[in-house]
Amino acid sequence: MSLVPGMPLVLGTTNVKKCRELKPVFEPLGFSLQALADFESPLEVEETGTTFMENARLKACQQAQHLGCWTIGEDSGLCVEALDGAPGIYSARYSGPGATDAKNNEKLLDALRNVPLHKRTAYYVSTIALSAPDGTVHIEASGRCYGRIIEDYRGEGGFGYDPLFEIPEYHQTFAELGMTVKSVLSHRGRALRRFMASFAKTLAH
Amino acid sequence: MSLVPGMPLVLGTTNVKKCRELKPVFEPLGFSLQALADFESPLEVEETGTTFMENARLKACQQAQHLGCWTIGEDSGLCVEALDGAPGIYSARYSGPGATDAKNNEKLLDALRNVPLHKRTAYYVSTIALSAPDGTVHIEASGRCYGRIIEDYRGEGGFGYDPLFEIPEYHQTFAELGMTVKSVLSHRGRALRRFMASFAKTLAH
Repeated sequence: MSLVPGMPLVLGTTNVKKCRELKPVFEPLGFSLQALADFESPLEVEETGTTFMENARLKACQQAQHLGCWTIGEDSGLCVEALDGAPGIYSARYSGPGATDAKNNEKLLDALRNVPLHKRTAYYVSTIALSAPDGTVHIEASGRCYGRIIEDYRGEGGFGYDPLFEIPEYHQTFAELGMTVKSVLSHRGRALRRFMASFAKTLAH
Repeated sequence: MSLVPGMPLVLGTTNVKKCRELKPVFEPLGFSLQALADFESPLEVEETGTTFMENARLKACQQAQHLGCWTIGEDSGLCVEALDGAPGIYSARYSGPGATDAKNNEKLLDALRNVPLHKRTAYYVSTIALSAPDGTVHIEASGRCYGRIIEDYRGEGGFGYDPLFEIPEYHQTFAELGMTVKSVLSHRGRALRRFMASFAKTLAH
């Protein structure tokens, strides 16, 4: 089954910010991007994967089959080298049930309390998968962005671990950088460029 | 010379609507799209080409060299078969000096006054070219959309010949169709999908 402009395309996330950012990317290409919130009873996909990509695939495939639509799944998170890759795929729920960005960031600072700045290297990962309505994965893309975890919060933008994630070359955290620079450097920007290369290619007939 | 996210990217048009539509397509990919209006002294490119693509290339290359930036040029228009392809590359200036959408549309209706509906087939063309700062063309893409010129105006949306250009299958003109359907069917949607396939591919490293 092939993807044709005009077909519904679902972004399998409850994150409103992600959907607002990606909607205008797909619209001039002939796709009205639907958020999960646009459906009456979307599936609550359990993130049982052991890698980011496995979770992105799960979110794409299970939701696609449930809704009968082409669906994009996304999974992303932060890997800290001094913590052997933690919080990793548990980034959103690092501080346990009822996790919030604030609690997760606090737990991360705690875990790194005795680690000096030069050993606090980390990277963000973003993975994106596109599934057909029958659950077949057609596109997979991922991107990384390297930086380090600083010792105190800086900046008001972004979300997740952004106020602690510094790009040393810019002397700025992801919460301080402007949108354009962030799109250039970020894991999500890199993954999205790779994703769009395959996505647009399938439509270019 | 290669195009890298973060470099300035210019849309070589004075058409504000086109720029507003395309800005959010390129931003999450790491490009802040600049309109000609953002520059102090952009070039006024003379459209001396004999085809749409030649004009798109002229607008891209000459402006790119003038501004020293990667630049996208676009040219589009309407070809009516009963008029041997007119207004064609003269679509925007069909009614002569001081041409407006209203005057152009009136002239078109006049030219087709004695042509019955079934002989008023027409197509829109959109061509897009990307030039490097040195004037080398790196990407070319084009798209067509077939319809017919009706005998009276219908609809409030769009611009140019849209209120006269009907898609028979939809019983609606381009000025009546919603943005999503229009992006699916339109010459610009088709050209853009082809353009993005090449554009995103050059960035997917």
